[in-house]
Amino acid sequence: MLLDSLIEKATREGTNTVAVAAAEDVEVIEAILDAVNRNLARFILFGDQNKIKSLLEMKKYDDRGNNLLKIVHTNSTIDSAELAVKAVFQKEADVLMKGNLPTNFILKAVLNKEFGLRTGNVLSHVAFFEVPGFERFTIVTDAAMNIAPDLQQKAQIINNAVSLAKCIGIETPKVAPLAAVEVVNPAMQATVDAASLTMMNKRGQIPGCIVDGPLALDNAVSALAAEHKGIQSEVAGQADILLVPTIDVGNVLYKSLIYFAKAKVGAVIAGAKAPIVLTSRADSAESKLYSLALALCCVTK
Amino acid sequence: MLLDSLIEKATREGTNTVAVAAAEDVEVIEAILDAVNRNLARFILFGDQNKIKSLLEMKKYDDRGNNLLKIVHTNSTIDSAELAVKAVFQKEADVLMKGNLPTNFILKAVLNKEFGLRTGNVLSHVAFFEVPGFERFTIVTDAAMNIAPDLQQKAQIINNAVSLAKCIGIETPKVAPLAAVEVVNPAMQATVDAASLTMMNKRGQIPGCIVDGPLALDNAVSALAAEHKGIQSEVAGQADILLVPTIDVGNVLYKSLIYFAKAKVGAVIAGAKAPIVLTSRADSAESKLYSLALALCCVTK
Repeated sequence: MLLDSLIEKATREGTNTVAVAAAEDVEVIEAILDAVNRNLARFILFGDQNKIKSLLEMKKYDDRGNNLLKIVHTNSTIDSAELAVKAVFQKEADVLMKGNLPTNFILKAVLNKEFGLRTGNVLSHVAFFEVPGFERFTIVTDAAMNIAPDLQQKAQIINNAVSLAKCIGIETPKVAPLAAVEVVNPAMQATVDAASLTMMNKRGQIPGCIVDGPLALDNAVSALAAEHKGIQSEVAGQADILLVPTIDVGNVLYKSLIYFAKAKVGAVIAGAKAPIVLTSRADSAESKLYSLALALCCVTK
Repeated sequence: MLLDSLIEKATREGTNTVAVAAAEDVEVIEAILDAVNRNLARFILFGDQNKIKSLLEMKKYDDRGNNLLKIVHTNSTIDSAELAVKAVFQKEADVLMKGNLPTNFILKAVLNKEFGLRTGNVLSHVAFFEVPGFERFTIVTDAAMNIAPDLQQKAQIINNAVSLAKCIGIETPKVAPLAAVEVVNPAMQATVDAASLTMMNKRGQIPGCIVDGPLALDNAVSALAAEHKGIQSEVAGQADILLVPTIDVGNVLYKSLIYFAKAKVGAVIAGAKAPIVLTSRADSAESKLYSLALALCCVTK
């Protein structure tokens, strides 16, 4: 329901263009064709022209004259990454998507000083989960990019997630910096950083949201658990964004949601000039489509 | 099913005795009476005699002449903690249980050099989860005691969990030291420690189990996810014990399982001379009973 509404929203937003680096991959092509069939976006496919064409033939793609797919031949995956990034830099495309190439190839192009997509902000991974039994998105950040962000990086990671949340209609997102306990303990950096982030928000240094932490996960998402602990907080029990202290925490939370809680997810890299879709082989086709839809909802022109 | 089988097993094991520190608490008394009604154990209730008696009356407890409850009056909660620990030390009781007192009060008594329950091993929290859709226990350690264990402490935490797993019939538990990735990355201490723990197991330094890490959570619990990544491992996809690198990771995993995946749990503190049940107010009555059953299954005489 929640993630499906992103697909509807992305369709309504009008036709954006996605630049795909190294599109010569059957699963990537499947996700792209799924998106094209839903009129979600136009695509520029950078990569090996022959391989891309034969994959499209294999999937019986029929253009029907609407020209939603354009192929640009490149001689190497590095070229495909650079050209895809340049297409976004030159505003020929609105979203960058990773195909069949290593993540560091595409990130290197994104960080290129001449034609890259950096804004000065930290790049961070933002995942929108639809968890069975929960009526709102559970947004987890950063489960995949930043290993052990410092306080300033955590503030930017919050900013990135808040921007995305606003794009999909969450006006003033509630942000819970997570820790193992809800009290400040000098031996636990996550709790100390959470306290600082809360005050940075109160002093206007992290605008557009309400930050309140440290909170343990139960207090962040369950009003009953927060009440049990006697926690007074505008965020407790109703957090939109869960800020994890490290990638170790984020990765376990992400995978626990998928494998144990049977949640669905769409995710993008935020903080660059355009949303970046970094799907991996392990992602389901559905998840790839949700990530694309999320990115398309968050295009700013 | 899994956790209910622990209750059956504990009943079959014969009558052990539980020493309860500061039993004067309605929820603790409820858990105890639930256990007594199932003939799970005898209890020695240390604490304020009048309060305990009135709680038992309130709950309409009928002794029926089987003397499963004994009350020992103490003048303070510190006394109740010390006397409960002494009862275990003197082998009058087999399991220690926390009632209505701060955790550090009972741990201080447990660590007392004269009559405490230390063995030289690290004390660690071991949680047995029954996750919907999973046919085996998912054992998580340590989600509650050790903030950031070093390599040696992690080895002992594994030992403690392996002992408990064996008690409940898992002959050679498979242990996955978790990290955000399944490759060794010098910038991620969890991956480095996981590699060392794996080799410590291979060299006989962590006996009685199979350790293989680093593994990300998906590779640890899903054979399909491990196959996707091409991971060859005796543990991948079938881990019994998930070793988390820090309390931050453990706490989020624990609470994600409860609040998102609707799992049930029983947990004890291991590594002392006897299992210790440290339930908290936030635990359900059911969870308290499972923790008691788990502790009773793991009594060694």
